[in-house]
Amino acid sequence: MATVYVLNGPNLNLLGSRETAVYGSLTLGDIEKLCAAAAKKHGHVIDFRQTNHEGELVDWLHEARDKAAGVVINPGAYTHTSIALQDAIRAIGIPVVEVHLSNIFAREEFRHHSYVSPVARGVLCGFGAKGYELAIDGLASALTA
Amino acid sequence: MATVYVLNGPNLNLLGSRETAVYGSLTLGDIEKLCAAAAKKHGHVIDFRQTNHEGELVDWLHEARDKAAGVVINPGAYTHTSIALQDAIRAIGIPVVEVHLSNIFAREEFRHHSYVSPVARGVLCGFGAKGYELAIDGLASALTA
Amino acid sequence: MATVYVLNGPNLNLLGSRETAVYGSLTLGDIEKLCAAAAKKHGHVIDFRQTNHEGELVDWLHEARDKAAGVVINPGAYTHTSIALQDAIRAIGIPVVEVHLSNIFAREEFRHHSYVSPVARGVLCGFGAKGYELAIDGLASALTA
Amino acid sequence: MATVYVLNGPNLNLLGSRETAVYGSLTLGDIEKLCAAAAKKHGHVIDFRQTNHEGELVDWLHEARDKAAGVVINPGAYTHTSIALQDAIRAIGIPVVEVHLSNIFAREEFRHHSYVSPVARGVLCGFGAKGYELAIDGLASALTA
Amino acid sequence: MATVYVLNGPNLNLLGSRETAVYGSLTLGDIEKLCAAAAKKHGHVIDFRQTNHEGELVDWLHEARDKAAGVVINPGAYTHTSIALQDAIRAIGIPVVEVHLSNIFAREEFRHHSYVSPVARGVLCGFGAKGYELAIDGLASALTA
Amino acid sequence: MATVYVLNGPNLNLLGSRETAVYGSLTLGDIEKLCAAAAKKHGHVIDFRQTNHEGELVDWLHEARDKAAGVVINPGAYTHTSIALQDAIRAIGIPVVEVHLSNIFAREEFRHHSYVSPVARGVLCGFGAKGYELAIDGLASALTA
Amino acid sequence: MATVYVLNGPNLNLLGSRETAVYGSLTLGDIEKLCAAAAKKHGHVIDFRQTNHEGELVDWLHEARDKAAGVVINPGAYTHTSIALQDAIRAIGIPVVEVHLSNIFAREEFRHHSYVSPVARGVLCGFGAKGYELAIDGLASALTA
Amino acid sequence: MATVYVLNGPNLNLLGSRETAVYGSLTLGDIEKLCAAAAKKHGHVIDFRQTNHEGELVDWLHEARDKAAGVVINPGAYTHTSIALQDAIRAIGIPVVEVHLSNIFAREEFRHHSYVSPVARGVLCGFGAKGYELAIDGLASALTA
Amino acid sequence: MATVYVLNGPNLNLLGSRETAVYGSLTLGDIEKLCAAAAKKHGHVIDFRQTNHEGELVDWLHEARDKAAGVVINPGAYTHTSIALQDAIRAIGIPVVEVHLSNIFAREEFRHHSYVSPVARGVLCGFGAKGYELAIDGLASALTA
Amino acid sequence: MATVYVLNGPNLNLLGSRETAVYGSLTLGDIEKLCAAAAKKHGHVIDFRQTNHEGELVDWLHEARDKAAGVVINPGAYTHTSIALQDAIRAIGIPVVEVHLSNIFAREEFRHHSYVSPVARGVLCGFGAKGYELAIDGLASALTA
Amino acid sequence: MATVYVLNGPNLNLLGSRETAVYGSLTLGDIEKLCAAAAKKHGHVIDFRQTNHEGELVDWLHEARDKAAGVVINPGAYTHTSIALQDAIRAIGIPVVEVHLSNIFAREEFRHHSYVSPVARGVLCGFGAKGYELAIDGLASALTA
Amino acid sequence: MATVYVLNGPNLNLLGSRETAVYGSLTLGDIEKLCAAAAKKHGHVIDFRQTNHEGELVDWLHEARDKAAGVVINPGAYTHTSIALQDAIRAIGIPVVEVHLSNIFAREEFRHHSYVSPVARGVLCGFGAKGYELAIDGLASALTA
Repeated sequence: MATVYVLNGPNLNLLGSRETAVYGSLTLGDIEKLCAAAAKKHGHVIDFRQTNHEGELVDWLHEARDKAAGVVINPGAYTHTSIALQDAIRAIGIPVVEVHLSNIFAREEFRHHSYVSPVARGVLCGFGAKGYELAIDGLASALTA
Repeated sequence: MATVYVLNGPNLNLLGSRETAVYGSLTLGDIEKLCAAAAKKHGHVIDFRQTNHEGELVDWLHEARDKAAGVVINPGAYTHTSIALQDAIRAIGIPVVEVHLSNIFAREEFRHHSYVSPVARGVLCGFGAKGYELAIDGLASALTA
Repeated sequence: MATVYVLNGPNLNLLGSRETAVYGSLTLGDIEKLCAAAAKKHGHVIDFRQTNHEGELVDWLHEARDKAAGVVINPGAYTHTSIALQDAIRAIGIPVVEVHLSNIFAREEFRHHSYVSPVARGVLCGFGAKGYELAIDGLASALTA
Repeated sequence: MATVYVLNGPNLNLLGSRETAVYGSLTLGDIEKLCAAAAKKHGHVIDFRQTNHEGELVDWLHEARDKAAGVVINPGAYTHTSIALQDAIRAIGIPVVEVHLSNIFAREEFRHHSYVSPVARGVLCGFGAKGYELAIDGLASALTA
Repeated sequence: MATVYVLNGPNLNLLGSRETAVYGSLTLGDIEKLCAAAAKKHGHVIDFRQTNHEGELVDWLHEARDKAAGVVINPGAYTHTSIALQDAIRAIGIPVVEVHLSNIFAREEFRHHSYVSPVARGVLCGFGAKGYELAIDGLASALTA
Repeated sequence: MATVYVLNGPNLNLLGSRETAVYGSLTLGDIEKLCAAAAKKHGHVIDFRQTNHEGELVDWLHEARDKAAGVVINPGAYTHTSIALQDAIRAIGIPVVEVHLSNIFAREEFRHHSYVSPVARGVLCGFGAKGYELAIDGLASALTA
Repeated sequence: MATVYVLNGPNLNLLGSRETAVYGSLTLGDIEKLCAAAAKKHGHVIDFRQTNHEGELVDWLHEARDKAAGVVINPGAYTHTSIALQDAIRAIGIPVVEVHLSNIFAREEFRHHSYVSPVARGVLCGFGAKGYELAIDGLASALTA
Repeated sequence: MATVYVLNGPNLNLLGSRETAVYGSLTLGDIEKLCAAAAKKHGHVIDFRQTNHEGELVDWLHEARDKAAGVVINPGAYTHTSIALQDAIRAIGIPVVEVHLSNIFAREEFRHHSYVSPVARGVLCGFGAKGYELAIDGLASALTA
Repeated sequence: MATVYVLNGPNLNLLGSRETAVYGSLTLGDIEKLCAAAAKKHGHVIDFRQTNHEGELVDWLHEARDKAAGVVINPGAYTHTSIALQDAIRAIGIPVVEVHLSNIFAREEFRHHSYVSPVARGVLCGFGAKGYELAIDGLASALTA
Repeated sequence: MATVYVLNGPNLNLLGSRETAVYGSLTLGDIEKLCAAAAKKHGHVIDFRQTNHEGELVDWLHEARDKAAGVVINPGAYTHTSIALQDAIRAIGIPVVEVHLSNIFAREEFRHHSYVSPVARGVLCGFGAKGYELAIDGLASALTA
Repeated sequence: MATVYVLNGPNLNLLGSRETAVYGSLTLGDIEKLCAAAAKKHGHVIDFRQTNHEGELVDWLHEARDKAAGVVINPGAYTHTSIALQDAIRAIGIPVVEVHLSNIFAREEFRHHSYVSPVARGVLCGFGAKGYELAIDGLASALTA
Repeated sequence: MATVYVLNGPNLNLLGSRETAVYGSLTLGDIEKLCAAAAKKHGHVIDFRQTNHEGELVDWLHEARDKAAGVVINPGAYTHTSIALQDAIRAIGIPVVEVHLSNIFAREEFRHHSYVSPVARGVLCGFGAKGYELAIDGLASALTA
């Protein structure tokens, strides 16, 4: 049994109450439950968190290095601007899967580039809350590979 | 009577003591007083804050969603780099007015683009401290429209 | 008592009868009245004009140099293409405030750059007709500074 | 029976006497006759004009809004530089067909972009004087659609 | 009497049954009839084809060199990516007219550039099915010039 | 029970025998078995194909419109160059999931842009053969939503 | 004896009274006298004009075609934005020399490109009022070549 | 004795009959003979083919992997647009020499970039038909190295 | 005797335990000792800190304004994205030396630009831990100049 | 009486014998005579040189600092690539006039930018050999200002 | 019998002793022998030289104009930066073949552009020392054409 | 005891007598003494040179390969344009430290890129003459590592 960190970036705390056309009607609490169930299927447990601070995401990734076997991360807007996240992921060495609720390639130009993707094990987007489940499945597969 | 959040980003706490040729000689405390007076004219009160942390600006915008009728924001340097601020403003739905003390278009190239402007109700710059008053007037007008 | 030139560029003569979703339902005549009232509040009078000709805007700015204390200008589409306007404003030396009815930063990419902004005293956009009032307030403040 | 404005931009008055290899040997007067005949075929009449002034093209487009059912325009060099023409066409609402004598895509890079095209009903180029006829046919078809 | 090849590129076989708001409700069969009638008016006959394969469009252009007096081509998506089409058109020497149903300049940025246009005799877009008629008229005029 | 098309683009027929460090050691036959099993889990069957021809991928997508409930596609190198694929996917209306074996964002710059992504329901990459399973899971979820 | 048109673009009427550090202290009247003297040296006379209207510069160039042997032009800000001027100069066929008072290459980036230069016989800048004399000398030399 | 595939891309079948100023007056059949002779000199035989289909070039490269010791390829217009060719060459592992009849660097900008060059053993252009001979010489040298 | 702030940005806390090929095997604690010794040589003391938060680096720079004579800063990933750091350094007025362990110019393109460099007194990179010593030497020299 | 250095860069030694359509039929020796005569008119003498070495042009500019009152330079191809020339001219402080025989703005894109122009007193091109005379006239005027 | 100049640019004197993985183990002396033999095969002799000075390459090209029938040049790093070489080659008129030992298109981006290629008769790279032989063969063929 | 080459590029011979605000008042002779003293501290001797010729810097780097243990180089303007220097440094294998007197990142855009930096052991700028000392310290440290 391993621990999987599921880390959520800025504005994801508002999920389910705003812009539901883009992000779906589930809250972040609902997604946490989906993740816990998906992890359990593979015999894993999750540690699920959200923050609006870039530095705190970096802190948590460092913490994951000792306490987790892998990470699922939805970096929100920091996806597109944070080299610090890229460096942290490269430094901690454990597998990290990047997930986005919406299809970022169908949105504004500036959302098409991710600093996280080049160092992620896998990347997925556009599947809504279901994407978190797929991310955990993919990560679990990588952990047993 | 409504509450207006007046949020100030990085380095604005140094106002009045440094680079007065660019930013004027008023302190942030002086500007807070101007804002309170301007708001009062329209029957509003203000909640005036400053932080050097991008994440904290996002936190405050989320808070404003429940506690304020509108926001005046001077995002400082985060204007040009923070997609997280854009997402937060789009998410909270209440009107946000962007203000800058200096004329950002007469400065370095990298200050000409704002991630906040496309989601702001109105934008103004170059009027010095007076700009905060105009921003509150403009916001008040939007609140009664 | 000073005279303020309020100059309007191409297509603004159609205001109020077309694309009201973008530009509002007030006509240019309505805006002239708002401006006159705003100027009067500060003890000023206005000279309010519109033209579809870039060269005529340049002529009027030259004229303003001798006859006005300041200028509020909405250069319309010439905002984005006219270096001649920039040169004229730099040459006449009196304060010029740039105003746009809509939030130009929420529109097409080619409307995000203004040749007028770098030489304007202040810039504002997105406040609709109210923006003209704020522009006159801001200019009046600059004239007494 | 409807009126169709046929508007011609800068330097087109020199047609037929200069650079005939590029623009053909017909004069603008010859083209006017072709247009009148083409319009007559559909039961329409034309109002045919030329100017070297961008502002005058804007003025005429505004005038067309009340007096014409549609417009055929060859904006000449203003094609590539005039946002004011784009705004005017968008504002007047009646169908506008853009025509060029030469194939602008086989010429210099800076002639490949047109500010008019995105708001035109149809665009055609490279057919020489014949293109004006096709433009009127296309416009007539749009007017009866 | 001459033969005119009317060649249609990828996805045009779906015409009339999908995205009718963009492409109109006529099927490719309907357009073939319009073309035949238009050609007949000039004493010509057409050979009308569609393929989803870039290489097949090149093959057909080569074939046209011996069997046709001219070509009307709607290269669909290959318009924007196929240098092979440009080379083929340049090589065969007979006049080629490029046509698009929709106004490609009012769509995504990547549809604004055409590799076919610089070597086409004439280009037209935005006239819907009517555009094919105009293309044949324009080509017929070129053939008699 | 629905049919899912699983379409593979150029060079994927060589899978398992070349560049196994990048693409893994499974052959395309192995992946077909994984896909069949994954589909079966959801009560679906697959139709699994590979081609090196862009036009054939377009043909198959058109065919899928009538015969399949959804599509999983790995467009290989055509991902980055084929607007024809984008148009086909947009035209057929059924959900399409894009999958890549390798993390395309960790490879050459020209592999970072996909013409397919903006019209895909979901996108995933970097999970190797496992990614096909996740794609089918994600597609199945979309089909029941 | 030939006539030389000396044409001056926008804002040059303000010469000598503003920004003398950049443009020198001579007025446009002073420069006219220098030009007349320089032309006289070569047995020529000048026709010296200034306008703020792009269209008027085009009109005058057309007029020069019949009435002048050559043109000296300082297109001011239209240098950088007017394709219409380029077309006019190319159309009229007589030699045109471009002159600028200041060294435009030592100023803002957007002043480094000239639409007039590619069609000018010669170009010079940075010599102040003296540059007009040199331009007339250079033109006179071209006229006798 | 080894077999060398000599593969020719789109429009090369027209060689010798069109644009002889650019491509020379030899036909593709003439070049095949030159290649056979050049290969014979090194004790090799050739398999010489031409196609207008990108997918077929990919098919043939795959086939070459088992049946040939090396490949000489003139990818024609696909040089500049086909990532699929790059992937195929990288996948098959045998040496591939890229040849062009004309000097592609002396032609249009879009012909200066080749997707094939980075994975080719050697590249040559500008030598006309002679270039095929040199390519076979160079490949033969690589095969014995 | 003066105090020198030595500030370290994101991920530098992991130094010595990860990616030692790039960053060397010394820990941040080791570097602190080197810095203290280097400062002592010049009669100075250091205040050595690390944070993953951009805002905290800004806070500390403000604090340094009153408590330190100069700053040595290794901004880590914020080097390339933080305009807030540039503004803070410009605002505090005391000399700041920028140091990087690795040669950032031999790494990814996005690490070649620094927002800190234009406002730094001196910049150095590529000397590993030794670079901190050189930075303190360079700063000490600036303090006595 | 002052000495004027007239410095010529790479390939100018071939003048008059090659590409006379572009550069004219005068040799560099002919131009030297024109320059001597032009200088004499102002009471000056010239020192006229040519080299193909960038470093030698820098050496001569340094030498000019002590021995000449001003410099006329035709830097040939180094115009577009040599920052060293820019630095040398800025360093020596005496006025430098840049001259080109052909109109560099009517040639290839890469000849449109000059590293010399921003630090030149004046720039002229397109007048052929006559341009050297005008350059000396312009320089002489600057020397007496 | 003709003389062929074989000119080598900067750093090629170090060949064979450094970076043999990239450039091969032959010395420049070895290559000279290969070239002499290749030239002899065609009845020609060579003049083989190396220099680290851009200006000297220009000098030698000028010299070749009178003394050689053609030139083989490996301009080394000056390939990518020297417009002077391009001008020299264009000026001397005799055929010049450009050769590179390594495949420059498989290396850094800045090595993909050559100022020499557009004026070379033929270009080849990636064949190692063998490339010099092929270059002489290709040049010999051009000399007899 | 090792020898360190200290190489100086174009215009550095003028140091101390011109633009002292940018480069300081020390002459190159003064800097040579500082370097000798700094080297002596580490038991090394220096060979100190200056040239305005790019080729000579390449020659000296080659020479250093046999005669020196390391190099400190201030390439002056060639920093930004010389790929030949990059190749030379990569070829010679000994450690090279790049130094600039001024902070090149606070100057013109074109001085922000260095071809030398990617192959340098360390880079430093902005410390004035002191920077040479630090460079020798840094190099000495690398030599003993």
